[in-house]
Amino acid sequence: MAAKNRALSRGVAVVGAGMSNFGAFPGQSTRDLFVQAFQEMRSSVDKGLDPADIEALYIGNYSSDLFEGQAHMAALMADWTGLTPRPATRIEDACASSGVALRQGIIAVASGLYDIVLVGGIEKMTDLPISEVTDTLATAADMLYEIPAGFTFPGLYAAMATAYMDRYGATPDSFMSVGLKNHDNGAVNPKAQFGARIADIMAGKVAKAQKKGYPAPTWANEMAFLHDDRANPVIAWPMRLFDCSPVSDGAAAILLVSEQLAKSFSDDPLYIAGSGQASDVALHDRVELTSIGSARQASQQAYEMAGVSPEDIKIAEVHDCFTIAEIIATEDLGFFEPGQGYEAAEEGLTTRHGPKPINTSGGLKSKGHPVGASGAGQVVEIWKQMRGQAGDRQVTKDVDLALTHNVGGTGQSCVVHIFERR
Amino acid sequence: MAAKNRALSRGVAVVGAGMSNFGAFPGQSTRDLFVQAFQEMRSSVDKGLDPADIEALYIGNYSSDLFEGQAHMAALMADWTGLTPRPATRIEDACASSGVALRQGIIAVASGLYDIVLVGGIEKMTDLPISEVTDTLATAADMLYEIPAGFTFPGLYAAMATAYMDRYGATPDSFMSVGLKNHDNGAVNPKAQFGARIADIMAGKVAKAQKKGYPAPTWANEMAFLHDDRANPVIAWPMRLFDCSPVSDGAAAILLVSEQLAKSFSDDPLYIAGSGQASDVALHDRVELTSIGSARQASQQAYEMAGVSPEDIKIAEVHDCFTIAEIIATEDLGFFEPGQGYEAAEEGLTTRHGPKPINTSGGLKSKGHPVGASGAGQVVEIWKQMRGQAGDRQVTKDVDLALTHNVGGTGQSCVVHIFERR
Repeated sequence: MAAKNRALSRGVAVVGAGMSNFGAFPGQSTRDLFVQAFQEMRSSVDKGLDPADIEALYIGNYSSDLFEGQAHMAALMADWTGLTPRPATRIEDACASSGVALRQGIIAVASGLYDIVLVGGIEKMTDLPISEVTDTLATAADMLYEIPAGFTFPGLYAAMATAYMDRYGATPDSFMSVGLKNHDNGAVNPKAQFGARIADIMAGKVAKAQKKGYPAPTWANEMAFLHDDRANPVIAWPMRLFDCSPVSDGAAAILLVSEQLAKSFSDDPLYIAGSGQASDVALHDRVELTSIGSARQASQQAYEMAGVSPEDIKIAEVHDCFTIAEIIATEDLGFFEPGQGYEAAEEGLTTRHGPKPINTSGGLKSKGHPVGASGAGQVVEIWKQMRGQAGDRQVTKDVDLALTHNVGGTGQSCVVHIFERR
Repeated sequence: MAAKNRALSRGVAVVGAGMSNFGAFPGQSTRDLFVQAFQEMRSSVDKGLDPADIEALYIGNYSSDLFEGQAHMAALMADWTGLTPRPATRIEDACASSGVALRQGIIAVASGLYDIVLVGGIEKMTDLPISEVTDTLATAADMLYEIPAGFTFPGLYAAMATAYMDRYGATPDSFMSVGLKNHDNGAVNPKAQFGARIADIMAGKVAKAQKKGYPAPTWANEMAFLHDDRANPVIAWPMRLFDCSPVSDGAAAILLVSEQLAKSFSDDPLYIAGSGQASDVALHDRVELTSIGSARQASQQAYEMAGVSPEDIKIAEVHDCFTIAEIIATEDLGFFEPGQGYEAAEEGLTTRHGPKPINTSGGLKSKGHPVGASGAGQVVEIWKQMRGQAGDRQVTKDVDLALTHNVGGTGQSCVVHIFERR
């Protein structure tokens, strides 16, 4: 079943974007984090925003139900940002929640019903004990057929990783190259949960051991560090600690307006060139483990709507919940041929100085992965990079087209957006 | 902040609607119930439906996370109805989830992105122990400010009921008149959880006692039965057992198409004439307890979009999670003046033979309240009544305009739709 390709009734633009820090914030609730994101978004609107002009909210959130014991979050977010009585809708598609919320916001503006829409992403994961976090994340898989068989999320992605290694000859080192790159980027992102290169983390461990008088571990280089079972333990082979995104708190906010209004809000708006969304069966039911069907479908829809090709995309934020996921994503998006994504990562083609920068923000791996906020958080990076405001991690080339790729579960949901700067 | 009133870019029609039975179904999961609703919806499409033509799913669900330990439901529902890889989006606004999903489906068709959209509502509440159900429902309130103060959902609505009694002179008997009416309607709805009039329930209790040889309780009439603390115990005064909707399992499915396509699917489609949605602060933070601001706002938007007045509406399905909620709803929707809704109920104006039939399906009270499915379930009743297919509960007058009113929490969310038959 190929989806029909259609155009939106009218154009939509991004005119503001902001986020809280991503990390572990024991004293703060989702409410606090979303207010921080909202305020940064507001101050990013070049010509100012009167919140009273916002007509609706779409809030991506995976499971405040289980993480915080609080459902019905959208109306609460409207209240805490002073936007009551605006219609407020929560969107949940697991870790793709706020990417899908973005798509619903775009559709709502295109429908003519609203001119000005706030899209949010929220998640507060660190209040739960870590074992319960794992259980909560597991509910994004198939609880009848996958979890009772012993799978966890690292295990599901590890199955994809071993299938990929078997088919294409990648090694665990291939995956580590993604972790190294994303930590390099996160080290220059002040919002990132891990603001440190892996070399710095390694040096920090040596210094700490020396300070305490323990025998200092000695690693010849970062790869030796990453090969050390104590420094980088196996979570679900071949996925080790530094292959896995962290448990995070965070929020992000995006302001959408109709294309007609874009210049009255922003000197330098981003236009939505393409949007695609698709579903897939759960992993246990798939024929193919080395590619995600929903990502291929969603990206195809977005490319067709935008009338562009993968090679036209200058930078992308992709869903690297695990390092294998980034490699597969760069293939599903058409940046590299199937089976060549791991070599591209090893060769440095996806660093921020390379020909196809991927996850200049640090990605979910280093920036953090507050699951319901991650899709909206990707847009914040694209907003900054395309407008030349990404500071030390600014890519050098001019970015006229950029892409975000946000996955739910093991790919039962995927949503892709393409942004254009004119 | 008054919302701007806008028209949709293009018209949208309902061309199919179906539901599972509502009730307690220990052996069935949400997946089973949604498939039943989907199949009934499909057989309701006059000119047939090829599921491959469905372009997207919007699934309303309150908290499968907490009720079933399964999040990420939308993609699963796509899988179980054979609709993978179609984009599948879960919507959550507490008990308004599938009413809001309907609105998102309408917006999506209006946007031009899709011509044919499936809207679903699902909830499976009875697998949990009842105490955990109450806790789960409580997460739709404000978990920081309301529940720790001792409130439950019956308690929150009881606060509205006592405020209403104090202000307008209603009595607990006023509320009971709503329960009596809705059980009268549910008794002739084969899908209803309680397919019995209260008189029949009373007679059943007498017969059961006699059969077991116990002294048979004697009640002069239904009101005497409802005044009996053992037959109709106080849940949160003045709300007694028969003032409260039940804990339910169920699913519903609606097929939306662009107005242009309506006649190619249906001999007798319903057209979306109006849609409105609004948010409100949580109950603890409101000045007004005898009316729900989001309901007034949402209905005003829907009336303006439709260009009609409350008196034009022939029948309505309103959100009677508690009997007080129906009375307040009939005032917020403008059917009766503030403070006159309870007298209208007492006088029988809202029975299915009266001038303003409300909840001919039996409402949430008698039909059942699988919370995420209730909004979509309301549309199934409107579909049947407007097309003259409601059997023994068919209203006698011709219904050219009908309304649904779906509330989340204590009104932090409300969504209203107006349907037109041409």
